[in-house]
Amino acid sequence: MSEEKKRTAGRRSRRGSRVKASFTQLPKRKFVNTFKPVEVISEDQVEAIHNASLDVLENIGIMVRLEEARDILRAAGQKVDEDTHIVYFDREFIMDAMSHAPSEFTIHAPNPDWNMEIGGDNVVFAMGASMPNSSDLDGGRRTGNQTDFRKFLKLAQSFNVIATTGGYPVEPVDIHASIRHLECGRDFATFTDKPPNVYSLGRDRNLDGIEMARIARGISHEQMLREPSLFTVINSNSPLMLDQPMLQGIIEMARHGQVVILTPFTLAGAMAPVTLGGALTQQNAEALAGMSIAQTVRPGAPVIYGGFTSNVDMKSGAPAFGTPEYTKAAIATGQLIRRYNIPYRTSNVNASNIPDAQAAYESQMALWGVVLGHGNFVKHATGWLEGGLTNSFEKVVMDVEMIQMMAELMTPIDTSVEALGLDAMREAGHGGHFFGTQHTQERYESAFYSPLLSDWRNFESWAEAGSPDALTRANQIYKDVLAEYEAPKLDPAIREELDAFVDRRIAEGGVKTDF
Amino acid sequence: MSEEKKRTAGRRSRRGSRVKASFTQLPKRKFVNTFKPVEVISEDQVEAIHNASLDVLENIGIMVRLEEARDILRAAGQKVDEDTHIVYFDREFIMDAMSHAPSEFTIHAPNPDWNMEIGGDNVVFAMGASMPNSSDLDGGRRTGNQTDFRKFLKLAQSFNVIATTGGYPVEPVDIHASIRHLECGRDFATFTDKPPNVYSLGRDRNLDGIEMARIARGISHEQMLREPSLFTVINSNSPLMLDQPMLQGIIEMARHGQVVILTPFTLAGAMAPVTLGGALTQQNAEALAGMSIAQTVRPGAPVIYGGFTSNVDMKSGAPAFGTPEYTKAAIATGQLIRRYNIPYRTSNVNASNIPDAQAAYESQMALWGVVLGHGNFVKHATGWLEGGLTNSFEKVVMDVEMIQMMAELMTPIDTSVEALGLDAMREAGHGGHFFGTQHTQERYESAFYSPLLSDWRNFESWAEAGSPDALTRANQIYKDVLAEYEAPKLDPAIREELDAFVDRRIAEGGVKTDF
Repeated sequence: MSEEKKRTAGRRSRRGSRVKASFTQLPKRKFVNTFKPVEVISEDQVEAIHNASLDVLENIGIMVRLEEARDILRAAGQKVDEDTHIVYFDREFIMDAMSHAPSEFTIHAPNPDWNMEIGGDNVVFAMGASMPNSSDLDGGRRTGNQTDFRKFLKLAQSFNVIATTGGYPVEPVDIHASIRHLECGRDFATFTDKPPNVYSLGRDRNLDGIEMARIARGISHEQMLREPSLFTVINSNSPLMLDQPMLQGIIEMARHGQVVILTPFTLAGAMAPVTLGGALTQQNAEALAGMSIAQTVRPGAPVIYGGFTSNVDMKSGAPAFGTPEYTKAAIATGQLIRRYNIPYRTSNVNASNIPDAQAAYESQMALWGVVLGHGNFVKHATGWLEGGLTNSFEKVVMDVEMIQMMAELMTPIDTSVEALGLDAMREAGHGGHFFGTQHTQERYESAFYSPLLSDWRNFESWAEAGSPDALTRANQIYKDVLAEYEAPKLDPAIREELDAFVDRRIAEGGVKTDF
Repeated sequence: MSEEKKRTAGRRSRRGSRVKASFTQLPKRKFVNTFKPVEVISEDQVEAIHNASLDVLENIGIMVRLEEARDILRAAGQKVDEDTHIVYFDREFIMDAMSHAPSEFTIHAPNPDWNMEIGGDNVVFAMGASMPNSSDLDGGRRTGNQTDFRKFLKLAQSFNVIATTGGYPVEPVDIHASIRHLECGRDFATFTDKPPNVYSLGRDRNLDGIEMARIARGISHEQMLREPSLFTVINSNSPLMLDQPMLQGIIEMARHGQVVILTPFTLAGAMAPVTLGGALTQQNAEALAGMSIAQTVRPGAPVIYGGFTSNVDMKSGAPAFGTPEYTKAAIATGQLIRRYNIPYRTSNVNASNIPDAQAAYESQMALWGVVLGHGNFVKHATGWLEGGLTNSFEKVVMDVEMIQMMAELMTPIDTSVEALGLDAMREAGHGGHFFGTQHTQERYESAFYSPLLSDWRNFESWAEAGSPDALTRANQIYKDVLAEYEAPKLDPAIREELDAFVDRRIAEGGVKTDF
């Protein structure tokens, strides 16, 4: 093959590709889902799954591995087996508890411009979180560390469509686990002014997280109790189990009026039945159990139902995401959740090892699940690779592009007389061109979505520039965004209070671990 | 950066990657769209666009550049200006003509197993067509030729989700234009037994195409007249013009009962107004004009309304595809077309120069336009790159995967008592695993979609295998498919008749050109 052919073979040039030097993005605006929800199951099927999940709760029960939680449930009249720690929830209790859960609420940010409206037709996108590894083209895949953690925070702050970091974008394992939540909480308030999260890894961490969120907002404990300002994700230990730290998280967060996102990890064929119907039934049972505990602790506590049902590869047992089954489950979950009239957390996930075409089409399948299932809170909206084991800097850029495209899709089509453009057709004439018409000149600058990543140059110009593929371009763009990052302003009094709190807690040893 | 890091940097290994040696695909089955159509414009907006397009037809008119067509329209009572060749269509004429167009019909294939059901909730996928270039990783981008043309035909025949080649997958410019349609027609019948197409590049080519399709099916002229067995795509010369060969195509195909796909090429900002509302209005006017001519020639002639509205990059004038505007237009076009109760042709398009993440996410945007807009006939369903300038062998594999995922998405969720799996939950137990349960064992082999291209191996296994990205794997898969290709059986009598016809027409010089 000749050099010329090699160059034009559509291959990626890894070094020296000339890509755009700056970046453009959509202005900050609310993402309101204007699409009607789609239905993949009938109303009868929704009822069948709902009723089966109540059957599960009543007759198979949930293993509740925290005495305090069992006491709360026993006091609320639920049958508790203290030998097995299984709680049998009756359906009236569940439905009464769920009736208190708010359908919409606000998660308040340190900067009110970044408050997140949760529920209804609102959609917010949270950066990918909790990955053990990060990766980019330059450094490859590596174990999470504070340097990368902070880079992700800067990206989360910089992109308008990212509403929150959503968690630790990558686990900074170079910070000892006993104080990691403290350093990360300080970083959240330093590098971003969007709402923080806290991991439910024991009661003390929840309490530290709540306090740091309060300080970052500069508000009183009373105001904090009224205004959700922090969220946590509770994963049940599927099947049908809630463990100690998760239950402590539900209890403390609800008690303090903070947001609990209850997300069962129901992978069909592994931790849930191999049938989607079965996995959804189990998901629903686990979600209702957890949320009902939050509502018992504090009726009206803000909760979000997290749908995460997907399937495993039955050949290898590996989890798969962005599959047809995943998308169907995401849409069906939306139908179930609307029955309870509460907000819906879903995700942008895939199983690819690299930000390639597979990563893109699997992510699209997940994002369309968001749109058609009417997800409200999209976790892992950016960067997710490898079923969640890696956060990719380049994938962040790809996902921001895809999310922006979805946002643009929601803008209405103008059918005013002026927009329909008959005068322009007269001006252009039969077989003519519209570039020069007044109608075009008046509108061309803002007529269409302007991409962040997509390269629409013709082949020749693109080849001349070194044939940069989407991955190569995304690499450049994320660095451009970092270069233009601006830290949010933090009130010196808040800075001082936050540092005092974090330094004191670190001096105390943080939350003791046995390593 | 160390070698180890380089290897695991998520980069593509181009040579020697070990990928799966064989391929699996979905069995042949009808694709029935079970999703309800989505609406991006209101009923009033549909009426506004419909009425504005009738206004265009009545008051601005369409330039009709064939005397025979103007005669037909004048005889049907339409106002014709013989100086400008502009025909002014009145709305009663248009609506009466459209009332004869069938809402559903069958395109008969040489092999009845591959008959295509057109309209209603049926969806058929046609291979990408009419590209001047082909490409793969091995040979790069090159001018179309017969060798690649035949490879694409073999792929079209091999993949169950591809219903037809849809045209020349790549233009075989090494065959002289005067006889190209004859050699290609013979190849269609030799390498595939799926329905052929014919290009409307002058009346004689249409007639040759119709005759070859008839011979390939081994049927009489009378049966051919009753049974659509061939289709052509008519692109209007937007704005508001139909040229000679296109009009001849409409007339001859309709006269012979064959399928006319009327697709205006309304790129907003170039050949149509810069507003989507305006581009859709013009598209609708042009489509109705062309289809009404077909219905005047032969009431009840099978027609398909092709929606192809997209936008250009206003910075460069380059066409863009798979944009948010494209998807919105595709869904809105579906709404318009349902008003006329006729089948809808749409496409799977993108503007990427390479089968990378951009190609995948733009294609997904287009494919979701198919699903949500209720497209019936999907042209360019596979392989399309560069706004249609290149057919990529690897992209064919990516698209087949994406189409299969959409097909799988349409399968229903089982909510029978057995499927809901409470017994399996009891058997697995709290915190247990479902792999070993009877419920899983009975179902695991067919529980989930089995991918053609997606690689779900964990990172370590994948890296060990040479870190093949989707592009590298697709390259191997397309070659595997070609290696396993089986030619369809062709009745010796048909073979003889076809060769006699083609050889005679070639001896006659085919269709004379001036070069």
